[in-house]
Amino acid sequence: MMGIVVVNFKTYCEATGECAVRLAKICEKVSKSTKTDVIVAVQNVDLFHVSCSVSIPVYAEHIDAVKYGANTGKDLPEAIVDNGASGVLINHSEDRAGLSEIEDSIKRAKSVGLTTIVCAPTAKSSEAIAALGPDFIAVEPPELIGGDISVSKAKPGLISDTVKLVHAVDKRIPVLCGAGIKDSEDVRIAMKLGCRGILVASGVTKAKDPENALRDLIKGMANAAPKKKLIGNKRVKKKTAKKRK
Amino acid sequence: MMGIVVVNFKTYCEATGECAVRLAKICEKVSKSTKTDVIVAVQNVDLFHVSCSVSIPVYAEHIDAVKYGANTGKDLPEAIVDNGASGVLINHSEDRAGLSEIEDSIKRAKSVGLTTIVCAPTAKSSEAIAALGPDFIAVEPPELIGGDISVSKAKPGLISDTVKLVHAVDKRIPVLCGAGIKDSEDVRIAMKLGCRGILVASGVTKAKDPENALRDLIKGMANAAPKKKLIGNKRVKKKTAKKRK
Amino acid sequence: MMGIVVVNFKTYCEATGECAVRLAKICEKVSKSTKTDVIVAVQNVDLFHVSCSVSIPVYAEHIDAVKYGANTGKDLPEAIVDNGASGVLINHSEDRAGLSEIEDSIKRAKSVGLTTIVCAPTAKSSEAIAALGPDFIAVEPPELIGGDISVSKAKPGLISDTVKLVHAVDKRIPVLCGAGIKDSEDVRIAMKLGCRGILVASGVTKAKDPENALRDLIKGMANAAPKKKLIGNKRVKKKTAKKRK
Amino acid sequence: MMGIVVVNFKTYCEATGECAVRLAKICEKVSKSTKTDVIVAVQNVDLFHVSCSVSIPVYAEHIDAVKYGANTGKDLPEAIVDNGASGVLINHSEDRAGLSEIEDSIKRAKSVGLTTIVCAPTAKSSEAIAALGPDFIAVEPPELIGGDISVSKAKPGLISDTVKLVHAVDKRIPVLCGAGIKDSEDVRIAMKLGCRGILVASGVTKAKDPENALRDLIKGMANAAPKKKLIGNKRVKKKTAKKRK
Repeated sequence: MMGIVVVNFKTYCEATGECAVRLAKICEKVSKSTKTDVIVAVQNVDLFHVSCSVSIPVYAEHIDAVKYGANTGKDLPEAIVDNGASGVLINHSEDRAGLSEIEDSIKRAKSVGLTTIVCAPTAKSSEAIAALGPDFIAVEPPELIGGDISVSKAKPGLISDTVKLVHAVDKRIPVLCGAGIKDSEDVRIAMKLGCRGILVASGVTKAKDPENALRDLIKGMANAAPKKKLIGNKRVKKKTAKKRK
Repeated sequence: MMGIVVVNFKTYCEATGECAVRLAKICEKVSKSTKTDVIVAVQNVDLFHVSCSVSIPVYAEHIDAVKYGANTGKDLPEAIVDNGASGVLINHSEDRAGLSEIEDSIKRAKSVGLTTIVCAPTAKSSEAIAALGPDFIAVEPPELIGGDISVSKAKPGLISDTVKLVHAVDKRIPVLCGAGIKDSEDVRIAMKLGCRGILVASGVTKAKDPENALRDLIKGMANAAPKKKLIGNKRVKKKTAKKRK
Repeated sequence: MMGIVVVNFKTYCEATGECAVRLAKICEKVSKSTKTDVIVAVQNVDLFHVSCSVSIPVYAEHIDAVKYGANTGKDLPEAIVDNGASGVLINHSEDRAGLSEIEDSIKRAKSVGLTTIVCAPTAKSSEAIAALGPDFIAVEPPELIGGDISVSKAKPGLISDTVKLVHAVDKRIPVLCGAGIKDSEDVRIAMKLGCRGILVASGVTKAKDPENALRDLIKGMANAAPKKKLIGNKRVKKKTAKKRK
Repeated sequence: MMGIVVVNFKTYCEATGECAVRLAKICEKVSKSTKTDVIVAVQNVDLFHVSCSVSIPVYAEHIDAVKYGANTGKDLPEAIVDNGASGVLINHSEDRAGLSEIEDSIKRAKSVGLTTIVCAPTAKSSEAIAALGPDFIAVEPPELIGGDISVSKAKPGLISDTVKLVHAVDKRIPVLCGAGIKDSEDVRIAMKLGCRGILVASGVTKAKDPENALRDLIKGMANAAPKKKLIGNKRVKKKTAKKRK
């Protein structure tokens, strides 16, 4: 058991509709052969189709903290679960939320059994989020997202600060990091700095060979000697999506 | 050929997940037996499941005017189409959009073949929207939505003003109305005032017997003598959802 | 009597606080010596100080369509007026508003006697706004704002289309244009295409010599032969700000 | 030297324009005669007029974390300071901000010398905000704001939890509380539970006799035996507003 890789499909062409299903299957294959937790976060509209097609955890990219009722156009947590999601990204830098919205979203997600990965741009905001009790925190400096330099190489201090500040609030919250992560070396550094895994998007979805790209990233985890035993396994429910007709 | 009924599922419990599929099948049944266009607008996350299960048009409740790329948490128009939607609600009173956002959403929806129903709270804003070239305009006074008094009875002047102002801009844009519509009499009045159909939510989704409630609404259309021949048929593509495995 | 120049101070350093007062005085001087309507739109927080210091019209850059009550942090129309504003910019591309918000803002502005200039990025959205009854419409393609190429030279068709579409809805609404306007030639073209005036920001605020820059712009108006007699004079109330202690 | 009273003027009629000046003078009078720190938070548009008229600290109700440049309609921190503010309310329940926005606003406020009071609806979100280093935290349950039951009487546990959680992060951050506070007894309880002061709005602004209402609130502070010596004095700069012509 090693680290966790969350592949964020965003709205990339290579990761939408039928392509989302295909890419999720590649992630599933690599997850099984490397015995690594690989989670795919897909567009909410693709949740049902993808979750019917793979057995690795499928996360939503967004929820709204609303309840059953008159909320046209909103992403109801219960509907997200009904369609096969086992977790959700909250406050991604492309989808920023209010502080109260983050608090409410975590509460609502928990009430329906969704695992929460809350994103933050800085160490300070990661510390703030830790107080709200998310399952994971993913620190990502927005200016590096989608770029050529990884957070591991450009801002190692940000990662170690985040791990320190988050764990001062709650030692049980695993920290992920993301932004510009492209190869095993980037991952190795991140793990060494205290991360439990990574959040990656274009590094896999836009790679010429996504399978190899993903395998390479996971190599970086194997080489890292994790300081603490992983508790992620209990958090990331490897729920087998109920087969639907 | 008569009017059009759009049933907005919102995030009602009775219209989410498996219940959304069941309710859509009821709508399909009534649509066929009454030879009336019934459209269901469902939560985006439910689109795939519902559109695989019925042959009537299934609409999304929201789109974002984004393109393929890095847009975590957004509702990409192409993904909406991939998952079986043939149209979309824009600017619902529970999901208000900026003016530029409405313009961009209509453009993006058209570019992927989605029919657009743009909602407006007043006659003036309906006129404004008409300039942006939507397929349909649905006028709904927010204060009557979900209530006991129908727009037809409470504000007949609003409906006739909207029809007049919208048609002064573009005669080809059919006007729908909604808010508090509960029975055939409400519908009859709306059609007489120049509407081509209605937008209904709790009147069907929360009805003790949704099938009967829907049949009753449609009766109000039969009794109305439409002033002009319907062009709605060409707009509402009665596309048979490609059967998916 | 010629055209109208609206100088938008935005949050430029050269147009904030004491500098806003100094720049407004330059605008006042040029307005008087050229007998041209020059309006300054200043940060709301600078309204009182500026409006106490000049007699030309001072506009707010934003209002919220709220009423007296519990609205912490909002820009109450009555407070805007109390502090010396005689008009307001609505829906600027750096401050986009919802369609309903635009409608409500125009209504609230009128109720307190504020003249409204509603901005729009396209000809279609200008037409839409015309239906809502603003005092002026200012068309500005966002991609040219703050740039080196003027809307007049880059998109003359946009200007003439906007004038045509807006006047088809309501002939009495004067159209302004903006984005990248830098010299008298830019203005001359705009006026020839049917504009009643211009909306300018960095072209004046960031000019080495704002007074000369403004005089040069106004030269472009003198050279233009306006198709119709100006009604702008009655709209732009050249109210002398009540002298405050 | 006792506690701190922040009077939030919101957009109440009794606290707008000339009335804002009058009310601020009453607050100044009570502040001096009771030797209590009274801060008035006024509409941004009223800042200049009010800060020219009184010598007690005047706060803005909102800032935007923007810099000098092209930001039409925004509240530039430097402009807020130029117009006499010495502090600002952030994330009020009527003006919620994103988590990153709160972090950026605190940073920008500090950079221009503005004291920050960040509001929060719950103990957890107060703890989260503490990580971002504000000068004060004000906890206010939204459902009690403007109501007849005070937070002190309805939710004493919320206050003590907030004080405990905030001080576990940073002992130096004083906690204020607000919502429904009407009399000296409400204040006495709040101070006893660990608050350094209160945030009050309608309790003063809408009182028949605001001066007496404010005096009564301050009585509740005198009766409280503060657990720790106040550090608020250094934070609340009793800056004498530069007299302007």
